[in-house]
Amino acid sequence: MIDIAVGIDIGGTNTTFGFVDKKGDSLKKVTITTDSKQGKKEYATQLAEVVKDVLKENTEFSLLGIGIGAPNGNYYNGTIEFAPNLDFEGIVPLVDLMKEHFDVPIILTNDANAAAIGEMMYGGAIGMKNFIMITLGTGVGSGIVVNGEMVYGNDGFAGELGHSVAVANGRQCNCGRKGCLETYCSATGMVRTAFELMSTFNIPSALKNYSFNNLDSKIIFEEAEKGDLLAKEVFSKTGEILGRFLSDAVNFSSPEAFFLFGGPVAAGNVLLHPVKKHFENNILKIYKNKIKILPSELPLGDAAILGASALVWKELE
Amino acid sequence: MIDIAVGIDIGGTNTTFGFVDKKGDSLKKVTITTDSKQGKKEYATQLAEVVKDVLKENTEFSLLGIGIGAPNGNYYNGTIEFAPNLDFEGIVPLVDLMKEHFDVPIILTNDANAAAIGEMMYGGAIGMKNFIMITLGTGVGSGIVVNGEMVYGNDGFAGELGHSVAVANGRQCNCGRKGCLETYCSATGMVRTAFELMSTFNIPSALKNYSFNNLDSKIIFEEAEKGDLLAKEVFSKTGEILGRFLSDAVNFSSPEAFFLFGGPVAAGNVLLHPVKKHFENNILKIYKNKIKILPSELPLGDAAILGASALVWKELE
Repeated sequence: MIDIAVGIDIGGTNTTFGFVDKKGDSLKKVTITTDSKQGKKEYATQLAEVVKDVLKENTEFSLLGIGIGAPNGNYYNGTIEFAPNLDFEGIVPLVDLMKEHFDVPIILTNDANAAAIGEMMYGGAIGMKNFIMITLGTGVGSGIVVNGEMVYGNDGFAGELGHSVAVANGRQCNCGRKGCLETYCSATGMVRTAFELMSTFNIPSALKNYSFNNLDSKIIFEEAEKGDLLAKEVFSKTGEILGRFLSDAVNFSSPEAFFLFGGPVAAGNVLLHPVKKHFENNILKIYKNKIKILPSELPLGDAAILGASALVWKELE
Repeated sequence: MIDIAVGIDIGGTNTTFGFVDKKGDSLKKVTITTDSKQGKKEYATQLAEVVKDVLKENTEFSLLGIGIGAPNGNYYNGTIEFAPNLDFEGIVPLVDLMKEHFDVPIILTNDANAAAIGEMMYGGAIGMKNFIMITLGTGVGSGIVVNGEMVYGNDGFAGELGHSVAVANGRQCNCGRKGCLETYCSATGMVRTAFELMSTFNIPSALKNYSFNNLDSKIIFEEAEKGDLLAKEVFSKTGEILGRFLSDAVNFSSPEAFFLFGGPVAAGNVLLHPVKKHFENNILKIYKNKIKILPSELPLGDAAILGASALVWKELE
C-alpha cells in the first residue's frame, strides 16, 4: 500500500486532483471542469466521486487525508467564502460536505497558503521558519509563515498582501479599493502597465499589435527577451513596485526569504533583478543584504495540488 | 519569599528598574540616568549593581529572571544593536555581559515587543492569540503576536511597522527613508502635522504661539479639547493616516485587535474616532467590522518595566 494525500486545487475554470505520496510525487492526476452553478452539496458529491473512483482503480492507494486549496478558502471554518470567480452564493461549507463522504482529515485553505506549505515541504523553503510566498497570477496572493507555522490570523483570512496598497490612489482593483499590489504586479497588472506605458511613451513596440484581451505576461516576456524597450520597461516597473512593496513587508515579520511563484516568474532575472534592486534600495538599514528573494522551486503545473496535498502531511505531523 | 521578575526599561535618558511579582505589581522601582558614554561592560555592571542592591535590601525577593526592553533590542542575540539614541558604538552584548553577574534567565527585546507581551499578560490582550501593539511616542514602535507567539522574525528584528511607508515620498525620517508611519503618527509626527497645517491653512490657532521645540502632543490635545480647529485637524489627519495604514496591516496577520499605546492615546476618542473611521472605510471587505482598535490597558508609567518583566514569566512558561 502507498500512503496517499489527495490535493485538490479549485479554480474558476478547472478543479484538479492530485494523488500525492509523501515524497511529493503526484502518482495520479485528474482534472474536471469546475461546475459552480450546481448546488454546493452536489459539487462536494462530485468531488468525492472523483476521489472514490481513483481509489477504486488504484487499490494500492491508502487514503490518509484530503487537502483543498481554493480561492477565499478559510482554514478554520473549512469554507469557501464569497469567492469572486465561483458561482456559488455566499459560503460553501466544503469540508463539512466532504466529510459526509470520507472519514479522514480534510483540510482547506486558500491557494497561496497551500503553495506556501508546498514550498515548505517540497520546495526552496525546506527548513525555513520564517518566509513569505508571493503568488503572481490573475491576482496576487500570499502565504506567510512565522515561527514555522502558517499565519491564518484570527479569522482564517490572513495573508492578503495582494490587497495592500502599493500605489496610493492608484489603479482600480476588483476588491473595490484603489492601488492594491495586484493591480500592478499580477500577470493582469503587467498588461495594464504595458497599456499605461503605450499611452505615455511614443516609441515603437511589438506590444502595440495586441489588444488588451490578447496580451499576456508571457508575450511581454518574449518581446522583452527580443529587446523590445517597452516590454522591458514593463518588467522594470513591475519589479520596482514589487521590490518597494516587499521592502516594507519585511518590517512585519522579517523573513529569511520571499518566494515568488507564478507565470511572470518564468521571466527569471528580467523580473528578479529589478525586484531585488528596488528591494535593497528601499529597505530599512537593519535588514539590508540579509533577505533572499527567490523563485519558487515548485513545478508550476503541479504546485497547487502539491501544496494542497501538503496540508494533509502538515496536519498529520 | 516573593517570586520576582526584574523588568529593566532602557531609554535614551533614563534606565528604570521594576521589581515585579507575577500578578504584575511593581513592588519596588528604581530609576537611574542612562550613562551610555561609559564602556559597555561598565554599563552592564552598573545595571547589575542596582539589581543586587535592591535584592540585598529586600531579602523577601526571590529573583527568577531579568527582562530588558531596549531600543533596537535583539531577542535572539540578547544585544542592543546600533541604537540611535544611545552613545554605545555598534553592538552591545548586554545579555552576555549581565550573565556574568546573575545565574537566572535574562531576556532582551525591543521596547514595543516588551509592551506587547505586557499587554498579553496584564492588559487588554489577555487570552488573545493574534494582536498588534502600536506604541506612539518619539517614534512609532510595534509588537506583533501571531498564534500566541511574539513575532521576532528570522533575525530578531521583526515588527518595525513605524518604518513602513505611510505616505509615498513623504516626510524625511530619521532612518534615512521618506514617508515612514512614524514621521506622521508619532507624538513628534503630530507636531510636524501641526506645523504643516499652520503653513497651509490661514486660521487663528493657539498652536501658533508655540515654537516647534516647545509644542508637544499633549498641548495639541488640550487645545483640541478647547475647540481649537487646527489642533482638532491634527488629530483628524493623524487618525486618517494611522487608520489607513492599519487597514493595510490587517492583510498581513488578520489580528483580533490593535492596541494603541503612548502619550497621544490619552486623547481618547479624539484620536480613536478618526482612526476607526478611516480603518473601516479602507479595509478589505472580508475584514470589515471584525477587528477592534483599542487603547492599551497598561498603565502609561509602568508599562515598559511591566512589559520587560513579563518577558521573564513568558520565558518560564
